[in-house]
Amino acid sequence: MSKAITSRATDYSQWYNDLVLRGELADYSAVRGCMVIKPYGYALWENMRDALDKMFKDTGHVNAYFPLFVPKSLFEAEEKNAEGFAKECAIVTHYRLKADPDRKGKLMVDPEAKLEEELVVRPTSEAIIWSTYKGWIQSYRDLPILVNQWANVVRWEMRTRLFLRTAEFLWQEGHTAHATRDEAIEETVKMLHVYADFVENWMAVPVIKGVKTANERFAGAEDTYCIEALMQDGKALQAGTSHFLGQNFAKAFDVKFSDKENKLDYVWATSWGVSTRLIGALVMAHSDDQGLVLPPRIAPNQVVIVPIYKGDEQKAQIDERVALLMNEMKAAGIRVKYDNSDQARPGWKFAEYEMKGVPVRLAIGARDLENNVVEVARRDEQTKSTVSLDGIVGHIQSLLSEIQQHLFDKAKRFQQTHITRADSWAEFEQLLEEKGGFISAHWDGTSETEEAIKEKTKATIRCIPLENDQEEGVCILSGKPSIQRVLFARAY
Amino acid sequence: MSKAITSRATDYSQWYNDLVLRGELADYSAVRGCMVIKPYGYALWENMRDALDKMFKDTGHVNAYFPLFVPKSLFEAEEKNAEGFAKECAIVTHYRLKADPDRKGKLMVDPEAKLEEELVVRPTSEAIIWSTYKGWIQSYRDLPILVNQWANVVRWEMRTRLFLRTAEFLWQEGHTAHATRDEAIEETVKMLHVYADFVENWMAVPVIKGVKTANERFAGAEDTYCIEALMQDGKALQAGTSHFLGQNFAKAFDVKFSDKENKLDYVWATSWGVSTRLIGALVMAHSDDQGLVLPPRIAPNQVVIVPIYKGDEQKAQIDERVALLMNEMKAAGIRVKYDNSDQARPGWKFAEYEMKGVPVRLAIGARDLENNVVEVARRDEQTKSTVSLDGIVGHIQSLLSEIQQHLFDKAKRFQQTHITRADSWAEFEQLLEEKGGFISAHWDGTSETEEAIKEKTKATIRCIPLENDQEEGVCILSGKPSIQRVLFARAY
Repeated sequence: MSKAITSRATDYSQWYNDLVLRGELADYSAVRGCMVIKPYGYALWENMRDALDKMFKDTGHVNAYFPLFVPKSLFEAEEKNAEGFAKECAIVTHYRLKADPDRKGKLMVDPEAKLEEELVVRPTSEAIIWSTYKGWIQSYRDLPILVNQWANVVRWEMRTRLFLRTAEFLWQEGHTAHATRDEAIEETVKMLHVYADFVENWMAVPVIKGVKTANERFAGAEDTYCIEALMQDGKALQAGTSHFLGQNFAKAFDVKFSDKENKLDYVWATSWGVSTRLIGALVMAHSDDQGLVLPPRIAPNQVVIVPIYKGDEQKAQIDERVALLMNEMKAAGIRVKYDNSDQARPGWKFAEYEMKGVPVRLAIGARDLENNVVEVARRDEQTKSTVSLDGIVGHIQSLLSEIQQHLFDKAKRFQQTHITRADSWAEFEQLLEEKGGFISAHWDGTSETEEAIKEKTKATIRCIPLENDQEEGVCILSGKPSIQRVLFARAY
Repeated sequence: MSKAITSRATDYSQWYNDLVLRGELADYSAVRGCMVIKPYGYALWENMRDALDKMFKDTGHVNAYFPLFVPKSLFEAEEKNAEGFAKECAIVTHYRLKADPDRKGKLMVDPEAKLEEELVVRPTSEAIIWSTYKGWIQSYRDLPILVNQWANVVRWEMRTRLFLRTAEFLWQEGHTAHATRDEAIEETVKMLHVYADFVENWMAVPVIKGVKTANERFAGAEDTYCIEALMQDGKALQAGTSHFLGQNFAKAFDVKFSDKENKLDYVWATSWGVSTRLIGALVMAHSDDQGLVLPPRIAPNQVVIVPIYKGDEQKAQIDERVALLMNEMKAAGIRVKYDNSDQARPGWKFAEYEMKGVPVRLAIGARDLENNVVEVARRDEQTKSTVSLDGIVGHIQSLLSEIQQHLFDKAKRFQQTHITRADSWAEFEQLLEEKGGFISAHWDGTSETEEAIKEKTKATIRCIPLENDQEEGVCILSGKPSIQRVLFARAY
């Protein structure tokens, strides 16, 4: 039996690391701040990626691929964007190694192979993409461009955490080009809804849709829309962002189009992205002290079957029946694994698949076969029941849907009970310390106050919710007039 | 109507570039040697990737993801591998930019943000992966590890060509670990067959399976197996390689396992990869002077439908009928596009889809509707026929299979008629100059002779075919005894 993981109550942060490592989602690597995504974690990412990719294509987007490197002169063209990312860029300066004369068999950077212009490893691709779009766009007929890219990006973070904040991560970045401001804003909001749809309906994580304040905006954007999720420790996590970039990048790269009246104008832009960070959100939203809890729609294995047998004859009988069952389940589109390995006992396997968050576990023994039944265990509720093998596939399908819904409902209840109003500074501070979650409070609308609140409490404005009620009040810190409440939280 | 492309006879190399650019597969980028893969090219790559990925999974492999960067000390651990790639490595030396005091609004590399150890942008991932496997492998129970990675890699090539040789390219790299030498060799050969199966049956490009000579071996491998394809200009193209790495990487990274008798031994390794280079092979194998010719199984669009109409009423009638047809075709799994755009005339569309290599084009006019027929044009043969709309879906399905087979057969005939025996040096040189293709000739088995032949003619030994006939003879250059013929060619 594997060693127990740290409980949430003991050390939430260690619990998270234990889950990621012991659940075999990822591993530390030999490269500072970079992780290895292990096969089980990658299978999860593949399911997430495939679902998202289909949603992007269903909304008219196509995929493409742009270079990993951004020449410094392009990188710095949009000044705000460049400034925002300059401090965390990996820079390629040379293109060759050579034998080190002082250390036999070792290599050194060849000083003669210095690049004339340094290359930035993309932290995001607006610059390289808009420098490319310049060649693709002449007329309104070339618009809109609705392109997405699945790629790795690098941001040299000083403090890293598996999935949540790594120097290299995998993501998708949509980069669209439009003829009008309205169309670009419509696209920005559309993709926010796509993200919310995915995170809520596939990952079973409820989110709040909103707009970032100027302080929290993407560098180079006119507006950043976001979805904010809530973790079990009461901290928020930004799960996806969609940016209205105005004409900033078109101006930086001189991308103009002629409209129907043959008038030249700069192109309007959006960009939007989600990353492997979502896996961190998923882990923290649903899992428990026994291990991962994965929503059926994206779980690498939705069902695991464990045989309980004594001797080869019983095993052969069970294997035979399970082979039939597996075929039926696979035909019904269920991702199922049969673990009849001799190297571990059933109890060990039970703990292992509990750790890995497999939504449904079936155990079949020789007597079950005689009785034509199977033991069905739910990972989320940790309940067991005995179910007839007749119609078991339909039963499992319903159960998977039920678990998916149950995980969402549970997380939604948690979210709803963790959005709390604060009407004074004292109340605000107390809520932050004692309850956490989102705090809905009045704010005077200035960056100074936002900054001061962050300094004092580490809480930031997560978003101004979409369709926010307009309500007069006074700012919890400054006491100045406010026209609406915004959502504060400490965040990942 | 778009400008005609350069013909193969006029300038084969320019023909290729024209096809890639005008077929909208890829574009040059602002980064030296790096390309932009455009949506149409990327859709092709997605189809190739998905087919390969399924083949890998069907043979028991799983995907994972390892860091982009390799610390120099790890990179140099396996000396032959390091030496082989040292001259073409992009090196990250710094992790921050800062405002340039001398140029307002511009950035410079921050000299204070120099890395203690330089990072190599992966040209291949053996080093980073085997340094990781060290932590994953203790016992024979942990073996085999059958992992694949889809990733971007960087090799700083001096002469680049779209798809064929780019500084950054996309690929997959399998990295497996085994308990025995035999099992590793079996895996190496198995994956070679998977590649051959894919390239022949999906890309319709016939290949020759073989083993590389020591000169052409992957740096760090004990044996490199390869598939070699033949292009229309008579040059060969290495389409995929599978390497038996022996215990070289296990020794470099000290990866040992205890076997069933508790005896420690180094782990046996393989690696294998194919890349976006395959798209170059595809273009050059089938296309003609009118544009791309894509095999139906991987074509982004298998069928395009173009309406021929006068006025809105006719258009509406055709739209309505085509909507039904599209549904039927999609339900049958056919990738079909309907181009009823008003912005171009049918003739322009015909040329455009011919350029893009869509295997089947349907044209439907008002009179066709009355007669319940459609005009069906094949891209490969450039023939047309009139077909009844009754049963059209079945007809198209058969036609797509027929085209797939026809492309393969045609390329296979070309390959077969371009494997020629040479029994003297004069014959060898003449064949190379006048006919090209593979030349089957005796070679004395030494690297010196191989090198001398390359110097004189630019021809290399593409491979020693698997299950090669053993036949005594004399080397075409040195006149020394030889035990078998090998395949020479000039190559991409």
